[in-house]
Amino acid sequence: MPTSTEITDNFPTNWGRWGDTDERGAVNLVTDEARARGAAEARTGRSVSLARVTGSTPLTAGPAAPVTGSTGVQTIMLHTGADSPAMAELMLVNPHHPQVTHLDAMSHWVAGGRTYPGIAAADGSGPLGVRHGSAAAYADGIVTRGVLLDLVPGGRLAPAFPVTGADLDAAADRADVRVLPGDALVVRGGWHLADHLDGAEPLPGMTLDAVRWMHERGIAVYAGDIGDAHPPLPGEVPGALHQFALGRLAIPLIDGCDPEELAATCASLGRWTFQLVIAVPRIAGTTGIPVNPIAVF
Amino acid sequence: MPTSTEITDNFPTNWGRWGDTDERGAVNLVTDEARARGAAEARTGRSVSLARVTGSTPLTAGPAAPVTGSTGVQTIMLHTGADSPAMAELMLVNPHHPQVTHLDAMSHWVAGGRTYPGIAAADGSGPLGVRHGSAAAYADGIVTRGVLLDLVPGGRLAPAFPVTGADLDAAADRADVRVLPGDALVVRGGWHLADHLDGAEPLPGMTLDAVRWMHERGIAVYAGDIGDAHPPLPGEVPGALHQFALGRLAIPLIDGCDPEELAATCASLGRWTFQLVIAVPRIAGTTGIPVNPIAVF
Amino acid sequence: MPTSTEITDNFPTNWGRWGDTDERGAVNLVTDEARARGAAEARTGRSVSLARVTGSTPLTAGPAAPVTGSTGVQTIMLHTGADSPAMAELMLVNPHHPQVTHLDAMSHWVAGGRTYPGIAAADGSGPLGVRHGSAAAYADGIVTRGVLLDLVPGGRLAPAFPVTGADLDAAADRADVRVLPGDALVVRGGWHLADHLDGAEPLPGMTLDAVRWMHERGIAVYAGDIGDAHPPLPGEVPGALHQFALGRLAIPLIDGCDPEELAATCASLGRWTFQLVIAVPRIAGTTGIPVNPIAVF
Amino acid sequence: MPTSTEITDNFPTNWGRWGDTDERGAVNLVTDEARARGAAEARTGRSVSLARVTGSTPLTAGPAAPVTGSTGVQTIMLHTGADSPAMAELMLVNPHHPQVTHLDAMSHWVAGGRTYPGIAAADGSGPLGVRHGSAAAYADGIVTRGVLLDLVPGGRLAPAFPVTGADLDAAADRADVRVLPGDALVVRGGWHLADHLDGAEPLPGMTLDAVRWMHERGIAVYAGDIGDAHPPLPGEVPGALHQFALGRLAIPLIDGCDPEELAATCASLGRWTFQLVIAVPRIAGTTGIPVNPIAVF
Repeated sequence: MPTSTEITDNFPTNWGRWGDTDERGAVNLVTDEARARGAAEARTGRSVSLARVTGSTPLTAGPAAPVTGSTGVQTIMLHTGADSPAMAELMLVNPHHPQVTHLDAMSHWVAGGRTYPGIAAADGSGPLGVRHGSAAAYADGIVTRGVLLDLVPGGRLAPAFPVTGADLDAAADRADVRVLPGDALVVRGGWHLADHLDGAEPLPGMTLDAVRWMHERGIAVYAGDIGDAHPPLPGEVPGALHQFALGRLAIPLIDGCDPEELAATCASLGRWTFQLVIAVPRIAGTTGIPVNPIAVF
Repeated sequence: MPTSTEITDNFPTNWGRWGDTDERGAVNLVTDEARARGAAEARTGRSVSLARVTGSTPLTAGPAAPVTGSTGVQTIMLHTGADSPAMAELMLVNPHHPQVTHLDAMSHWVAGGRTYPGIAAADGSGPLGVRHGSAAAYADGIVTRGVLLDLVPGGRLAPAFPVTGADLDAAADRADVRVLPGDALVVRGGWHLADHLDGAEPLPGMTLDAVRWMHERGIAVYAGDIGDAHPPLPGEVPGALHQFALGRLAIPLIDGCDPEELAATCASLGRWTFQLVIAVPRIAGTTGIPVNPIAVF
Repeated sequence: MPTSTEITDNFPTNWGRWGDTDERGAVNLVTDEARARGAAEARTGRSVSLARVTGSTPLTAGPAAPVTGSTGVQTIMLHTGADSPAMAELMLVNPHHPQVTHLDAMSHWVAGGRTYPGIAAADGSGPLGVRHGSAAAYADGIVTRGVLLDLVPGGRLAPAFPVTGADLDAAADRADVRVLPGDALVVRGGWHLADHLDGAEPLPGMTLDAVRWMHERGIAVYAGDIGDAHPPLPGEVPGALHQFALGRLAIPLIDGCDPEELAATCASLGRWTFQLVIAVPRIAGTTGIPVNPIAVF
Repeated sequence: MPTSTEITDNFPTNWGRWGDTDERGAVNLVTDEARARGAAEARTGRSVSLARVTGSTPLTAGPAAPVTGSTGVQTIMLHTGADSPAMAELMLVNPHHPQVTHLDAMSHWVAGGRTYPGIAAADGSGPLGVRHGSAAAYADGIVTRGVLLDLVPGGRLAPAFPVTGADLDAAADRADVRVLPGDALVVRGGWHLADHLDGAEPLPGMTLDAVRWMHERGIAVYAGDIGDAHPPLPGEVPGALHQFALGRLAIPLIDGCDPEELAATCASLGRWTFQLVIAVPRIAGTTGIPVNPIAVF
């Protein structure tokens, strides 16, 4: 029986699969065929957001300044006077905050001092910003077919539940869908990380087995409300999704999704596939950025 | 002949057209029919961004800290050490900056102390943020058919050119398209506001006549590289796009688009219509927010 | 008996007393004589801070990012890697936050659309910053004699206590000191605004009578743990300290002091006067700025 | 003759001299005697700032937003409307920026993974802020005698000039002053780092010999317009001031001083000593912070 180290050492890698300078990783799996399959899903044009609602904390001054808990976004209102024709604000954004649905780009993850597909971390990113593997590599959008695998329709996974490939297969069977190379995988487990930062309940999480399943199916991008468990799952490789799906397989992650409305829509329509459009803001040089993935039916 | 004041006083308004508490304005024109028309445009799934590339200025410390020009986004890198498995940053975002492609929501504009559809400005927004007419009103995406009207294929408008309804009609005729209610109007004039902040050349701009044209056609959302002229166009109502399209007709504006690649794609495909997906980040309480409009063919 | 409006209308003003373009207000009362009186107080060189300890909230990323209450200062650590010879940070500072001991400069207060000494508010400050009455007007330091008037040695004022001139006189008598023109007035009432933001107890505050007392004595700068009451004191002019001491008499205020250690030192030394050095950071164009007033004995 | 490595390895250290948990370093040299010597310098009370004027860049929105070079401080104006009684702002401060006169605290420097007086860097500071050696360790002020050594009265040092102990002695002789243990050393060389970021002229700098001189004299704090040379001085240990004065001798540095007005005052008074008050803002957990050192005569 292989040891844990043997398993992880021998885990497949996509480093180099699309060349030495690639910045898009598994999104390269979105071929013309996959792209057309996604377009074919857009029929009525009805759209649903997969993003969490991110509140914003106002930054104000004076004795009445509120002392509130921080969120992923703080806004600073400008021009609040009665005589201005326009209202505006600045925003201080913490893209990787658990309350923000965001894309993790290739530059977000470092292993052995290197980032995908083998760039020295210090060459790829530094105090002056990200030079390789920025989220802006996806600036013309990740547009493909999305498949929702709802692990517990109407409910939520047990605390510390280890999601495996078999669980994903079972959900696909329930929905009678077949996941194909270049698809976006959307997973619903009924948990919201942001509601569980107090650590009162151990989070469920994706296992290395589930990540291997993603590799075998040719997943281009992962979006879900289940991420890496906190604390790590007993007996499982910790941080499998970030370390292996993002770090080794170069699958960009949409962290912190909220697929509740999507799941309700899929159930009411009896359709578990849809066109998925991830319009990554075209801002240069970031390791991650807020996104609002839109499912179109 | 009506005076300028008579013209503006009598200009049509959409305040109240969709109720007293509506936050979405002309996006209500995206009916099921318009939505399906948009979906039908998605065929190959090829996608193109309409967003400007926004550079980000790094904020660093030390004697080597660069003294660079500011942009619409400043990033602050965290965890730049060799021993961190993850790289991350904070972003200070100035959504209404000319270098940022962004959506102007209903709360952005104030007229006579009120914002659409008649809310007292002080009730709608204040130091604590936006309570009515936030960009988050579009959080499930603006998804409809987009039509590109290229005013000067391959070229750029003359300085201080006043764009009228007749110019829009001429572009539609050239492309052999008919603009329909609920469509997104994308205009290309070959200018980039961010490149002209020095004021060396007077900007072209949309006239009140063009805004009236949008009203008559039933435009749901405006996206273009032509906005309001700076300085105002001689003999024209100043700020027609912001004052009348956004302020009176409640048409959300996508400021600062870059439709160059879109125009090249349309020309090569001989298609001037496409599915347009504007995935507004789901962040509560802002007057505007960076977006990356994605055209899908 | 004069009405409330008559009282406030007839309240003395220092607008114009030091010319039409002055930015320093009552600090002009620090004459050579007052300055020398302050210097004479420096004997052993022992120093005590009058500033509140301002905590700083870290802004970090990742699932472990803390969700803490906001403070007046947020810090963003840079270069936290093992291979950097230097550690640094950025700071987002909210100078007028109650947890920050700060100076209110002339530009902070607006009355009837004007700021001291009669500048149109829109000329003095705007979105581009402060052009008149900035805290930087005190950049070579406010250096004079300080006098501590401890209103309740060892205790704290009753909730909603209205501090009058008689209370100040009584404290001066207890300490056997005479307040002179150009002195800095330091008041201790045993309250910390930052601890009472929940509004559970009504704050004590300075009355208009106390402000008149300051005018008659020729106070150059006010520093204390007692400010304007929240909610306003029954039967008193609300906001007397900001409206009349700062706004009318042009006495800069050091908001949010913590004179506990100072009071203990004074009591142990039997000395209620000292050299006070307020070293206002030399940053251009602000309405207020954090300061750490230092008493030297 | 000793090699360069032998010289630096054998360079004196103050790690451990004031215990294993000390956070104040050479400021411990300010004994009661030194303190009283400083107080005795305060005679007329005339005060002069040693800080550079730090401009602030406004962060605003809209098409008129200025695109200016960044500075060490960016301000964001709030409440700019006509109906607000108070004007306020937020400030984004980059303390270690060359345009900001700031104190480098013990936590700023790391050598061999440790900070003064031997704390593992990861224990002393991290993403959550500074836990040991913060600038707030000096929150009750650094108050002592200051001595100005003007290296080139009325002029400026030659480019790439290596300042040695002999140069400091010569300046002291010219001024007829004797530097004593616990004094603050203020050096003027007539250069402003912020004006020379373009690298057109090589900066002068302090040599290891000058740092040794500081150690022998018992300097408590260093303030000057001469720091470490950029590029490093030929044949000299690079970064001597930061590596050895701050890092080894634990002498806090006031980076980026502007002693021009001080030098003029000293020359006009014929006095090269004064009371120096460094009122470090009482903000917890920073590696450095803006200060305005005030000389009182």
